[in-house]
Amino acid sequence: MQTIVLVCLLAVLANADLFTAIADLQHMLGAEKDVTTVIDRYIAAERARLDDLRRYAYEYVHRNAHAEAVGPEFVTNPINAYLLIKRLTTEWKNVENMMLNNKASAFLQNITANRENSQVKFPGEVDLSGAATALLRLQDTYNLDTHDLANGIIGGEKVANKLSGHDTFEVGRAAYNQKDYYHTLMWMQVALNKIENESPPSVEEWEILEYLAYALYQQGNVRRALSLTKRLAKIAPNHPRAKGNVKWYEDMLQGKDM
Amino acid sequence: MQTIVLVCLLAVLANADLFTAIADLQHMLGAEKDVTTVIDRYIAAERARLDDLRRYAYEYVHRNAHAEAVGPEFVTNPINAYLLIKRLTTEWKNVENMMLNNKASAFLQNITANRENSQVKFPGEVDLSGAATALLRLQDTYNLDTHDLANGIIGGEKVANKLSGHDTFEVGRAAYNQKDYYHTLMWMQVALNKIENESPPSVEEWEILEYLAYALYQQGNVRRALSLTKRLAKIAPNHPRAKGNVKWYEDMLQGKDM
Repeated sequence: MQTIVLVCLLAVLANADLFTAIADLQHMLGAEKDVTTVIDRYIAAERARLDDLRRYAYEYVHRNAHAEAVGPEFVTNPINAYLLIKRLTTEWKNVENMMLNNKASAFLQNITANRENSQVKFPGEVDLSGAATALLRLQDTYNLDTHDLANGIIGGEKVANKLSGHDTFEVGRAAYNQKDYYHTLMWMQVALNKIENESPPSVEEWEILEYLAYALYQQGNVRRALSLTKRLAKIAPNHPRAKGNVKWYEDMLQGKDM
Repeated sequence: MQTIVLVCLLAVLANADLFTAIADLQHMLGAEKDVTTVIDRYIAAERARLDDLRRYAYEYVHRNAHAEAVGPEFVTNPINAYLLIKRLTTEWKNVENMMLNNKASAFLQNITANRENSQVKFPGEVDLSGAATALLRLQDTYNLDTHDLANGIIGGEKVANKLSGHDTFEVGRAAYNQKDYYHTLMWMQVALNKIENESPPSVEEWEILEYLAYALYQQGNVRRALSLTKRLAKIAPNHPRAKGNVKWYEDMLQGKDM
């Protein structure tokens, strides 16, 4: 096991950005601790906003209902006319502003500032695909089983948490981006199995199907590619490519049959 | 009383837009009834968003805390390294999106659509200043007391709700926009009295002070204008004009003294 971990680590270290991110792990996770506090404060601020909104909006609606109950003569009184029109303009604007005034941006700026103060470069998309690629290299070198890896098992030992459907899907996408359709096929198939037991699914079935069908086609299984693309067209009728792809695979199979 | 109401109504009717708004009052208030339902549904949707966010963010933080507790060796395992980096990229992005995803716009579009379906032209800023002007004309014609009007009293009778500080302030602004500094002075002074008993005040003291000081200056009371502007500069130290105005009034008084 020691060897595998070492090889993997070397593969991981090949990516300089990733190296920085991992070397600074403790720092990074330390900075992330404040996230709970910030999110708790955000949720409290938002709840207070909703309570204010409810009070203000109820007052708005209550006073309108009173005006309606009195009937048209309500506004023959000039003070009432003024107050009613002020309510339907200025006060309604206040209701709108209370609805739109989500305080997330300020809190997120807080978190960003914390991260910047921590002097640690947080990982980005490049680091994510680097880490997925490291997993694929490990799998390739040691001929590891996709189901095992996706269940946190290396060499028969449970060494990590299970991957979710979306975790698995992202490894499949890394393989796809390297035109490694053999691994795309295996990881996307596992992703499809995983989401069957997820509620709600961590990734949509239609997202998996398009990659899976294309990988099957690349591996020479056009019939199964067609069958999955038909399912894709059925569950995602507005998908921009599904119907065109069905035809494409159908034409290909007819060509073969001729 | 009948006469006053009639005169006022004539003044109100002078504004064609306002006429439309008032003639359609019942319709308009009918359409506004749905507002409670829409706002209730908005508040429920937002509470659900906050609950989801709390669950998701806690899971995010909990798993980071676990990684930190294990220490740097946590990521010598390539599955852990991948999962950790995915959490700090994709899953953190999800937390951000859940924070930013205020659903107000969709609900407000709903309300706008309702209003448009009701075929009624809702009042705007022009109608509001028209209604305030109608109040001022009525006051002028019948020499009515500002305090009485602001307390919903016409000719000794309580005919409407009390005006708030902000309601009163807006009438003062309508007077100001017509360069009617005599009425600006009176209504802004009442607004100032009103907010003393409001918590929180429906309009900020500094907003009233600037109008009040200028109206006092226009009515020839430079000393009191200076005194209020000094107070304005004190309570709103970043006000763009307060300090300049203090100097302006001071110079004016010195010129007089010479």
